[in-house]
Amino acid sequence: MPKFNVGPLNHVGVAVPDIDAAIAMYREKFGVTDITEPKDLPPQGVTYAFVNLPSGQVELITPYGDNSPITKYLERNPKGGQHHLCFEVEDIREAVTAMETRGMRVLNEPRIGAHGTLVVFLHPGDAGGVLIELMETPKADASHA
Amino acid sequence: MPKFNVGPLNHVGVAVPDIDAAIAMYREKFGVTDITEPKDLPPQGVTYAFVNLPSGQVELITPYGDNSPITKYLERNPKGGQHHLCFEVEDIREAVTAMETRGMRVLNEPRIGAHGTLVVFLHPGDAGGVLIELMETPKADASHA
Repeated sequence: MPKFNVGPLNHVGVAVPDIDAAIAMYREKFGVTDITEPKDLPPQGVTYAFVNLPSGQVELITPYGDNSPITKYLERNPKGGQHHLCFEVEDIREAVTAMETRGMRVLNEPRIGAHGTLVVFLHPGDAGGVLIELMETPKADASHA
Repeated sequence: MPKFNVGPLNHVGVAVPDIDAAIAMYREKFGVTDITEPKDLPPQGVTYAFVNLPSGQVELITPYGDNSPITKYLERNPKGGQHHLCFEVEDIREAVTAMETRGMRVLNEPRIGAHGTLVVFLHPGDAGGVLIELMETPKADASHA
């Protein structure tokens, strides 16, 4: 079996019905000052913003477009909730090979994610009910872009 | 309004039906080598283990005792899933005062959490559907204890 391990926890994805309201909540209730402007990511069907903590990052995501994967999630969880965990990997293709070798279902071909690097998602049924995103480590810090 | 802000993301709490199976999954599928032995935390009704990544921590939790808050969660999510986010705060009592002043419901009196410092939980209905734990920053690094 090829050697493979995930790296740092890059971010926690939180689905929200209203991204402006969510940003206001993190700013006003929790005092977070470093929050990025919402941006659309059409390939993933989401609009996202990063809540940057002194260490750790929450990615707020809300549906973009008509076929967003977040729409169904929000139908089940109208107030929003935790949507995925993102672990960094050195090389996405090695990661996909390792995951498939180890019996984990990879849900998509690698595509560009919110940090500008390639990402895949794993089936939550193989990972204790948690939707896991694997993301190639950004070469520079794109989290504040 | 008193000045207050949360600090780093300390960990992500993930509920699991079988903590030994979850540990094996993080070790064998994701190649994580630094995972603590399961420990019981009777005041919170959980058995927990920390999955320590190069940066970031997943706290695996499973029910302990007859009145565990995790039991209900697992009835709704039998495979497990993301349960809470934990942000560090400098002083738990200041945090409670700030949260209450800002209209956030605090669910418990401060009590000792898995890192040995005082913690409270906030009502998910006030925080975008996410159960938030606020935890006094450990004085030393207790995450590998």
